[in-house]
Amino acid sequence: MRDFTFYNPTRVEFGKDKEKQIGAYIAEYGIKKVLLTYGSERIKKDGLFDKVVASLQAQNIEYVELGGIQSNPVLSKVQEGIELAKKEAVDGLLAVGGGSVLDSTKAIAAGALYDGDVWDFFTFKAPIEKALPVFDIMTLAATGSEMNSFAVVTNEETKQKYFIASPFVAPKVSVINPELQSSVSKDYLVYSAVDIIAHSIEGYFTATYHPDLTASYVEANINTVIKTTEKLLANPQDYDARGEFAWAATNALNGITYPGIEGAVSPNHLIEHAISALHNVPHGAGLSVVMPAWMKWFYKENEAQFERFAKNIFGLNSALEGIKALEDWFNKIGSPTRFSQFDIQESDLDAIAQNAYATSGFFGLSEKYTKEKVLEILKLAL
Amino acid sequence: MRDFTFYNPTRVEFGKDKEKQIGAYIAEYGIKKVLLTYGSERIKKDGLFDKVVASLQAQNIEYVELGGIQSNPVLSKVQEGIELAKKEAVDGLLAVGGGSVLDSTKAIAAGALYDGDVWDFFTFKAPIEKALPVFDIMTLAATGSEMNSFAVVTNEETKQKYFIASPFVAPKVSVINPELQSSVSKDYLVYSAVDIIAHSIEGYFTATYHPDLTASYVEANINTVIKTTEKLLANPQDYDARGEFAWAATNALNGITYPGIEGAVSPNHLIEHAISALHNVPHGAGLSVVMPAWMKWFYKENEAQFERFAKNIFGLNSALEGIKALEDWFNKIGSPTRFSQFDIQESDLDAIAQNAYATSGFFGLSEKYTKEKVLEILKLAL
Repeated sequence: MRDFTFYNPTRVEFGKDKEKQIGAYIAEYGIKKVLLTYGSERIKKDGLFDKVVASLQAQNIEYVELGGIQSNPVLSKVQEGIELAKKEAVDGLLAVGGGSVLDSTKAIAAGALYDGDVWDFFTFKAPIEKALPVFDIMTLAATGSEMNSFAVVTNEETKQKYFIASPFVAPKVSVINPELQSSVSKDYLVYSAVDIIAHSIEGYFTATYHPDLTASYVEANINTVIKTTEKLLANPQDYDARGEFAWAATNALNGITYPGIEGAVSPNHLIEHAISALHNVPHGAGLSVVMPAWMKWFYKENEAQFERFAKNIFGLNSALEGIKALEDWFNKIGSPTRFSQFDIQESDLDAIAQNAYATSGFFGLSEKYTKEKVLEILKLAL
Repeated sequence: MRDFTFYNPTRVEFGKDKEKQIGAYIAEYGIKKVLLTYGSERIKKDGLFDKVVASLQAQNIEYVELGGIQSNPVLSKVQEGIELAKKEAVDGLLAVGGGSVLDSTKAIAAGALYDGDVWDFFTFKAPIEKALPVFDIMTLAATGSEMNSFAVVTNEETKQKYFIASPFVAPKVSVINPELQSSVSKDYLVYSAVDIIAHSIEGYFTATYHPDLTASYVEANINTVIKTTEKLLANPQDYDARGEFAWAATNALNGITYPGIEGAVSPNHLIEHAISALHNVPHGAGLSVVMPAWMKWFYKENEAQFERFAKNIFGLNSALEGIKALEDWFNKIGSPTRFSQFDIQESDLDAIAQNAYATSGFFGLSEKYTKEKVLEILKLAL
């Protein structure tokens, strides 16, 4: 066991109708006016927006709106949010949406209390020293952002998809009502499943020391995602499956799979961020292309753990069989595993590799993941 | 998935030498004077006390001492601590010891800010509305008290072993350094293993609905305890095993095994508390007598889950085989499984059953666990 600090003070309110209590949760923090962030106008059509506003009004909490946050969220929108938050002098933020909406909101929360350019936080030019309190209602389960201190945003001018990590932006209260997630499209369900598995395997495979206990939690999360994805593809209204899927997403990146491990890094995220920074590809779809390729490239460095994965996830006996089984499963559920499925050509890979290598320092990966090595991995997914 | 709230803001500082930082952790909270609680004088002989005091002094934090807290901690000692805390006007508490020291300290923390009798909290006559901040350095891994809001104390006059549950008494920062736990006696290692398994199985077997994901976490904890106990019996200095054992103890009762479950209760703890309220029996030893008996009495009510336990813990195929395997394992590691091993006679069981039934309301078990039913269970352990 390596030394660690475990600290995750986010409160999760999970269950039916919990979104109706959001005003009360926010009022506990003495907040008077929130920036209410969301993505598409869908939440206005399906009644969620009205429920949220009613809950805020019942507590005399004012709100201003910032809609239109898209997947692979962009810096310009974050900057728009910061300007609005400052102008309207909000003292809290409420994200209603998926990981992209919440990640943008976290960045706005930090930027609203900062005089410089919020991008400074993403390039580690400035540390985040404070942030407005963040709350959320999750309409998609995937990124785990609802119970961690991370956020990813793309600078669309420089084509950099970078992250921040600060306890100040971790949500105070997150609402997870599986019913609000049941209208997610089949494609996004599948991409979400892939994203959760990606969060699970990064540390699991790359750690140079991994306690059996935390590895077992990872396997529990992956097995749950596989089982519940299949149930949800068969019946999107399966509440219990939807709930377990959502809770597995949260647990895959809330810290419980990391205590005591050493040397964990995130090469799959490094590479995928380069793909979706340059091409309009959903994050999960990019990951299902990257992961099997990376696994084939990497497995000999930690073959015992890949054998454990094969056995404990798929009941198979060798590293390569396990990798193939995961790739087959991605194909079975309909998530892409080859660049050709995005119409990304071999000639595009050089730029992706270059973009990844440019970010690799932030991931602590600049020595191992040179442009040439990333290109090697990418070519395995042609 | 049933509705739940997950909120656990305790910070765990895990690893070598972390106890030397305790002064700094406490200073973060602006605390000037602590009540330093502990059990035997062992910590003065082995140097831990001096390290802790040096760390406090480096931060100009004063301290007053309350030593001599025993296993199965008693109300009179808690009252002594409350008096001392009030007289010395401490603004924080630091427990150095195992679960008994920490549980007493939690009760003192609440009692120090209360004008009435602290026992009111245990009998639910008064709610805990505030408490002084609690910190701890764990020298024994077993109860999980370092990352939860529970505490158990015995009123030695009335022979009642009761509990409190309040977020106000949850530790702010808990230090777990496995090295500090390596001198634990073989007996107490074994009783601790039993206690962790007891915390794990209560919800696992009694819940009327149990998501696969949380059940898998329980199994991961139990499997870790079994493996690491055997490693530690062979080599008490195995740091990694000691660390995983400690972290499994924390995770068995920090809330991660409870989300989404319904109807979980704690009959084994109800019954064991009655045993150790009346007889001088270590809690873990009492539990290894109670559990197999209770399992034999109960398993038909949730046979599928007992079959799952048999399979996922011991690789066996039936509920009864799983129960026998657990009982055999308790025998193998040297924890008692029969009352005769304590010199408790059949004639003593009536009083135990009566004591358990008197507390059963606090456990939400008064309908199911009548005196007669508890006696039935107890007799299975003769």
